[in-house]
Amino acid sequence: MSTENFSTFDDLYLHELRDLWDAERQLLDALPAMAEAASEPELKQALRQHLTVTKEQKARLEKIFKSLDESPEGHTCAAMKGLIKEGNDIARATGDATVRDAGIIGAAQRVEHYEIAGYGTARTYAQRLGRSEDVDLLDATLREESFANELLTEIAESGVNEQAVRA
Amino acid sequence: MSTENFSTFDDLYLHELRDLWDAERQLLDALPAMAEAASEPELKQALRQHLTVTKEQKARLEKIFKSLDESPEGHTCAAMKGLIKEGNDIARATGDATVRDAGIIGAAQRVEHYEIAGYGTARTYAQRLGRSEDVDLLDATLREESFANELLTEIAESGVNEQAVRA
Repeated sequence: MSTENFSTFDDLYLHELRDLWDAERQLLDALPAMAEAASEPELKQALRQHLTVTKEQKARLEKIFKSLDESPEGHTCAAMKGLIKEGNDIARATGDATVRDAGIIGAAQRVEHYEIAGYGTARTYAQRLGRSEDVDLLDATLREESFANELLTEIAESGVNEQAVRA
Repeated sequence: MSTENFSTFDDLYLHELRDLWDAERQLLDALPAMAEAASEPELKQALRQHLTVTKEQKARLEKIFKSLDESPEGHTCAAMKGLIKEGNDIARATGDATVRDAGIIGAAQRVEHYEIAGYGTARTYAQRLGRSEDVDLLDATLREESFANELLTEIAESGVNEQAVRA
């Protein structure tokens, strides 16, 4: 592992953006299996829809990298790697399908919270650096992640948890 | 890796609690180095204080395990492992100390968000299972994590980010 160098705030901003880009890249690979493992149609649909949204979010980051004349490559988001591992363990679990659905919702909400924290930080950095176009792009994603998190809560509350508790 | 079995909602609840317990355990090991790496006294103090709070949070979970007559051991929280790896990479970064501080705040806020998602889920499960004493314990931790997250935002906004952007 190479040591990071943060000589300027721009270095940290770039590190943050690369972390988010790699997180989205990993998520694009992982979401289809999560959607496949979900049993409740509403949950399956939400995860599939989030795949489309994730593609757009990755493209927004690439737009920022292009304007910075930097490559998004070169950093592995270790946290997303762990989050996905946990999600996969739950998706592969045996037992009751509705209980597994409740678990998938929990794992997906951890992913959303990670992204909310990351995009929130990146947006703050962009504001500090006076990069208003980046702020708008990061803010659009941040709103989508919050919406995705709320949707998952609704799905959990609309029946999945109630059914799971009866398993 | 053994396959998880979620036959009942209790199995999922136990999985969730073990994940949180292992996350706190890992965090207890990692926080001293993060506090050490911080340069801003207010940030150093907040991280040290969070070490004390983390010990109490781990003890609260152990109280729940005791009442369930279950062991907290046996699960590794892969997400916290990744979050800590990212935090350590930032803590070890060379360059400007204030920029590193801003990075440490970002890493710590990702940890808080992970815990907020995890404890939020566990509290919902405890409610569904009618375990009101657990709800109170989990809720106490949840409020502490939200407070810790807000405190980090305040520290960032009170000067760290402003200084870092001038680096």
